[in-house]
Formats: sequence, structure tokens, C-alpha cells
Amino acid sequence: TIDGPRLNEDIAFTSRFGATPRGGIRRLALSAEDRLVRDWLATHGEALGCSITIDTMGSQFLRLEGSDPTLPPLMMGSHLDTQPTGGRYDGIYGVLGGLAVLRAFRAAGYVPRHSIELANWTNEEGARFAPAMTASGVFAGVFTLEQAYALTDRDGVRLGDALQAIGYRGDEPCGAHPLAAYFELHIEQGPVLENEGKTIGVVTGVQGMRWFDVTLTGQEAHAGTTPMDLRRDALLAAARLMVLAADVAAAHGPDAKTTIGIIDARPGSRNVVPGEVRMTLDLRHPDDAVIDRMEADFRARADEIACGAGIDLLIKESWASPSVPFDPACIGIVRDAAAKAGLSHRDIISGAGHDAAYMARICPTAMIFIPCRDGLSHNEAEYAEPEDIVAGANVLMRAIMAADEH
Amino acid sequence: TIDGPRLNEDIAFTSRFGATPRGGIRRLALSAEDRLVRDWLATHGEALGCSITIDTMGSQFLRLEGSDPTLPPLMMGSHLDTQPTGGRYDGIYGVLGGLAVLRAFRAAGYVPRHSIELANWTNEEGARFAPAMTASGVFAGVFTLEQAYALTDRDGVRLGDALQAIGYRGDEPCGAHPLAAYFELHIEQGPVLENEGKTIGVVTGVQGMRWFDVTLTGQEAHAGTTPMDLRRDALLAAARLMVLAADVAAAHGPDAKTTIGIIDARPGSRNVVPGEVRMTLDLRHPDDAVIDRMEADFRARADEIACGAGIDLLIKESWASPSVPFDPACIGIVRDAAAKAGLSHRDIISGAGHDAAYMARICPTAMIFIPCRDGLSHNEAEYAEPEDIVAGANVLMRAIMAADEH
Ligand SMILES: NC(=O)NCCC(=O)O
Ligand SMILES: NC(=O)NCCC(=O)O
Repeated sequence: TIDGPRLNEDIAFTSRFGATPRGGIRRLALSAEDRLVRDWLATHGEALGCSITIDTMGSQFLRLEGSDPTLPPLMMGSHLDTQPTGGRYDGIYGVLGGLAVLRAFRAAGYVPRHSIELANWTNEEGARFAPAMTASGVFAGVFTLEQAYALTDRDGVRLGDALQAIGYRGDEPCGAHPLAAYFELHIEQGPVLENEGKTIGVVTGVQGMRWFDVTLTGQEAHAGTTPMDLRRDALLAAARLMVLAADVAAAHGPDAKTTIGIIDARPGSRNVVPGEVRMTLDLRHPDDAVIDRMEADFRARADEIACGAGIDLLIKESWASPSVPFDPACIGIVRDAAAKAGLSHRDIISGAGHDAAYMARICPTAMIFIPCRDGLSHNEAEYAEPEDIVAGANVLMRAIMAADEH
Repeated sequence: TIDGPRLNEDIAFTSRFGATPRGGIRRLALSAEDRLVRDWLATHGEALGCSITIDTMGSQFLRLEGSDPTLPPLMMGSHLDTQPTGGRYDGIYGVLGGLAVLRAFRAAGYVPRHSIELANWTNEEGARFAPAMTASGVFAGVFTLEQAYALTDRDGVRLGDALQAIGYRGDEPCGAHPLAAYFELHIEQGPVLENEGKTIGVVTGVQGMRWFDVTLTGQEAHAGTTPMDLRRDALLAAARLMVLAADVAAAHGPDAKTTIGIIDARPGSRNVVPGEVRMTLDLRHPDDAVIDRMEADFRARADEIACGAGIDLLIKESWASPSVPFDPACIGIVRDAAAKAGLSHRDIISGAGHDAAYMARICPTAMIFIPCRDGLSHNEAEYAEPEDIVAGANVLMRAIMAADEH
């Protein structure tokens, strides 16, 4: 069984790497803090007798050898990077939960037939380099290595150079080896399990998501002398688009979500009517056809708003991850594992993207969720109960053992 | 008479200090570029035989001695700092136009009774350090030197330290000497003179303006998992406030203006619902009573919006400059000067703040406007016709000579 106290200690300890004053973590992908936590993981993997490889995308793989070298490995994984003001659990729980499973196997002298690998994927959050799930995307063949290396952060640093800078540009070709199955453990990041008092979410898939870069170009003008009706105010038009995005979500039912997370208005002076605004747009829904309609609605009405305000509008899709159904057999394994552990559970669709969404393209995949307080994530106050932490890791362990028997 | 070609050459030459690729100027107050243009002005003042002093706020004063040392000096002035993406005329025209007047007096061997001073005021734009018209404000006793030194830019640099850094923290006490009158020459920065085909604006006063810092605090949350109705999205609420600000302007007639020039949404990640937004608000109207009503309307409806969205709202006034009537005698001098020069003219109220607005508190003051193309200012494309440039400087010269006779 899982060493629960140890797992919760690991979560507390690693939260030091990038700790924020408000109890969260700022550990952007490939930052100095990311390097520290990677080194920590490698040390603990070695202590367990795992072999460790780093691929060309910087993802770390801790490997426990199985008894049958002809079988492809089973993989667990998640990520250790965080949002700029992230919590202690998002991604971290999946990696440290996987480490707890490896540790439990070692402690019990249990040798599975398949080798078991634990992945720490690079740049899952998409906060420093967009898009999200970058390294699992390259692993799964969704992006090329060249595309990923060329991504830049807001200071213009290339992902490839950032990998080099922290010493995590590995030799192992990214995505080379076949896998028997992939399981990812995560906090729900939403309110469903908590509201229903369920301990385990049996994740049946991931909703669709689409990212856009929106640019509005108007005309810089003096705030004191330019009559309102002569202005081409890029920020006022952007404000109308933000309200429109909320209206579009409301028009497409409770599962539709729209978010503007980044906005930059130029030149950024109090007494200058902004001439240019760049902002992001994130559209989500479990049904890709609904996202199509949301996008079409937004584009049509945004064009009208921009046109009426004398603004040039550019809406560029930067990333799309269609909705993903997980593998029925793997979903069944997770459901059985929860039931056999005597834990309350329900099926659930993930609202967040996960590395599992890309892994599902190349091997049978499923996920395990546990509740988080107030459904809060991407927030320094993110919290999960220690007992739920342990329960989820036990389900992951049982799922791996069940998959190993197939 | 004014040496027109020389004046237009000076404007073209000094535009090199901070030139932008799009033909404008980026010369933030107390930047390296600001230092260069100050040194240029000092060199040319010395060449004319002016004495030069620098006060504790870093303002430069070029002084041509008059024949009667018992009379207080007459002052001309404006500023050489610009917006982040500013034009070649805003402020600059007033300083270089004043230099052209000094040069004309020297060339003609004309010695006025009053000494004539030309001021280059520090940080007029309010772009690097808010509020605007900082040094003329200290000169006029509106702010203390300590308040001004403690102002910080967005990198946290104090104005006092920035003065020191470019070597322009002078010894002359700021605001020490009495003045006979102050005249400021400027482009209109709005569309009125151009639309009516008038060459000279006889400025009768400056409208009222009020600046606010607005902070909205909601809750950071995950863009993919957080249902729309559970969000406390600080940026969506800010968007509604921006639309409200435009509505408030519309409700108070064509002279009302509202502008949001700066916005900062945190944490600034595509897949995080923003938890905090800081933005500015600029309210203007020629009638202070109307600004009172605009502010009250904005506050009342903003509170409702914030309350309905679960957002904590703070609206803090950071600066207010009440509407300023200029001195009737000085206005008359400008009107006569334009008429005697045979130039078309009309009375006009300034929509922009100017150092003259603060100087009006301590001495008889008026301003002279010339048209600018498309009424465009605080824009790299700002442009004024060379003939208008010369015409305005001639009016300034005549006004100074007329005032000297009083
Ligand atoms: N799990 C998680 O928060 N991933 C980030 C990708 C996204 O859903 O925006
Ligand atoms: N003249 C000028 O643009 N001054 C800046 C102060 C303001 O009006 O906002």
C-alpha cells in the first residue's frame, strides 16, 4: 500500500521550490525552480533504483524494470511546472503520486511484468510557453520538436534555449518507445466531486479547447482633446469583446466556457487612448461542434463591434485540442480499482487539458481525479485533503497492477 | 522676426533624441534621451548668451537679462519629455518656439525691460511619473518637493533618484522667484482649429481633469473547469467598467471625455481567470461640476457591477486638476498679437493639461495654440505645418513684447 504520510510530506517539501508568500507555487516551466524540483525527483528516483532518462523535450522518465522485457512499459505521469500563481497540487500530485506507487512496489518487493515508467512532462501548463501539454504533445507526434523548440516566452526566450539553460535538454529521442497504457492522477480542479461528496473521479475524457490570439488595432490619441466620437479606442473595443465572450458562453449552456486571461494595451499611458490591444481567448466545451458554433458566433459579432468602432481585428487560432474520449478498458480498470478500494466514485469529464489528452492518441489511456477544495485551481489557495491524496494514489497503484495483469 | 527655417530645423533635429521607427519620439521624462535633449538646449541657450539655471525639480531656465533689474521676469515655457509613443511637437514646440523668440531678440539687438526666461519643465506628460505637470506643479506650490521626489515609475524608480541619475537635480530652489506673466505656445492636440481653418487658438483656459487608480479583486480560477456562474472574474468586471466609462461620457454631452489608458490583469496566464485588475481612469470636462456628476455616476454604477460580480472594487483618486481660467489681460495680449500679425484666430479651451495650468495659479498666464493634422496628438504621426509653426512663434514673440510694455 501507499505510504500516505510520506506522499503528503513530499507534496509539502517540493512546494518549497518556488514557494510564494501566499502559500502557492510559482514554478514556471524551465525556470530555476523547475530545475531544482527536477533534480529532487531524479535523486529520489535513483534512491529507489530507477533508471532515469531525459528526452529531447526535457521530460524525465523514472523506470522500474519489469520481469518480462518483451512487454512494452506501463506509464504514469503528470507535470511539476505551475502557473505564475499556482497551487501545490496541479500536476505535482500526479508525479509524486506515481513516485509513491513506485515506492510501494519497491517496499513490497513487488516486481510487475511490465516495466513501469513515471513521466514528468515539460511545460504542461502552457503558462510560460503556449500551447499547453507541449512535451507530451511532441511525444505523441502532435507537434514536431522543431515547433516546440521555437516557442518563445514573453521575454522572447526560446523553449529550446530554456531547456539548455537549466541543463535538461536530454539525449533520448522524444516519443520513441511504445507503451502498454498510460494513467494520470490529478486533482479535479473543478467543483463536481466535492459537491457530490465523491472521493474518486473516473475520468472518461477531456473536453475540447481552443486558444486564440486577438489583436485590435485602432489609433493612439490624446485622452483630453479627442472627442469620444472621433476615437478609435482599441481598449474600449476589447472591453466589448470581453463582454461578448461572456455572452457567447451564456448562450451555449452551462458547459460552455470562455476566458480572457492575458491583455496588453499599448502604449499603456494614462492620458493616451490605446491604439493597440493584444489579448488571448480560451474557448471550451465537451462537444467540439458546440465550440465551432461558439467560435463562429464570437467571430461574427466581434467583427461587427470592431467595424463599428473603426478597429482592425485579427483573431488567430494558436492552438486547438479537440475533445478526447479515453480508452474504455482503461476507464474500466480505474472504475474497478476505485470500487475494490471501497471508495465512492463517479464518471467525470475533465475540463482541464492534461498530458493524458495527448497520450490517448498513442496508447490506451485514462485518468483518476480526486476532489479539491471549493473546486479551486490555478490559484495559490488550491487544496486537497491528505486522505483523498492517499486514496487517489491507491487507486493509481491498483490500476497499474490491474493493467499489468492484462 | 522669427527665423522660421531655423525653428523647423531645431524641431527636426531634436526629434533624433529618442526617435522611433515610425517617425515619433519616445523620450520619457528623465530618461537618457531626455538628458541628451536637455544638454542640447543648454548648449544653444549658452550660445545665445543666456544664463542657465536648473532647479531642484530638474527644470531648466534659460534667462536673457532685461534692461530693468527691478522688474520680475516674463516667462515662456513648455516641456521636452514625451509619451512612450509620442509626437515631435507636443511640448517641444513650446520650448523651441521660445528659443526662437530669444534668438530673434538677440539677432535684432532687442533688449526688453523685463528679463525673459524660457522654462523646460520636468515630467509634464505624466507618462513616466503620474501625475502630469509635476515640476510646474511644485513651482506653483501645488505639490511639495518631497511628494514629487517620492513618485515612482512602473519599475519602482523614484523621481528624485531619476533626476540624480541623469545629473539634473539642480540647486535652484523650485518656485522661488516671482514672475510678471507666463505664456505657453503649443499645438492644439485636437481638431477644432484645423476644422475651422484657423491658424491661432487664443486659449482662454484649461478644462478640468481627474485621474483615478481602479483596482478590482476577484478570484483566480481555472479557465477550463470553473463554471461561468462560479467565477469572480476581475477582467470581465473591468471590461464592464470600461464600457460604463464610455456610457458615462456619452451621457454628459460632447465635451465629456473618459479614458482608460493602462490596464494590468493578473496573474496574466491564458488559462487562468484573472483574479486582480488594476487600471487607470481619466475623466475630463470644462465644467468641474459636470466632472463631479460623471464621477458620481461612474462610482454608483461601478459599485453595482462589482457587487453583482463578486468583485471588490477600489476607486482611488490619484490627481485632480480643476478647470483653469487664464488671465483676461494675457488672453487679450494673445488675441491682439494674432490680430496684429494678420492671422485668423479664435478663442479655445484646452482639452489637455499644460504647465500653464499650474503657472496660472501664481502669475498672469495665457496660451497660444496652432492646429495639428487630424487633431492627432499622443501619437507618433503628430504633425503641424511649418508655416503654422512659424506663425505661432511670431504670436508668442509679439505677446512677450506687448507684455514687456505693461
Ligand atoms: N491541468 C491543467 O491545469 N492544465 C493546463 C491546461 C489547461 O487546461 O489549460
Ligand atoms: N499637453 C499634454 O499632452 N499634456 C499631458 C497632460 C494631459 O493633458 O494629460
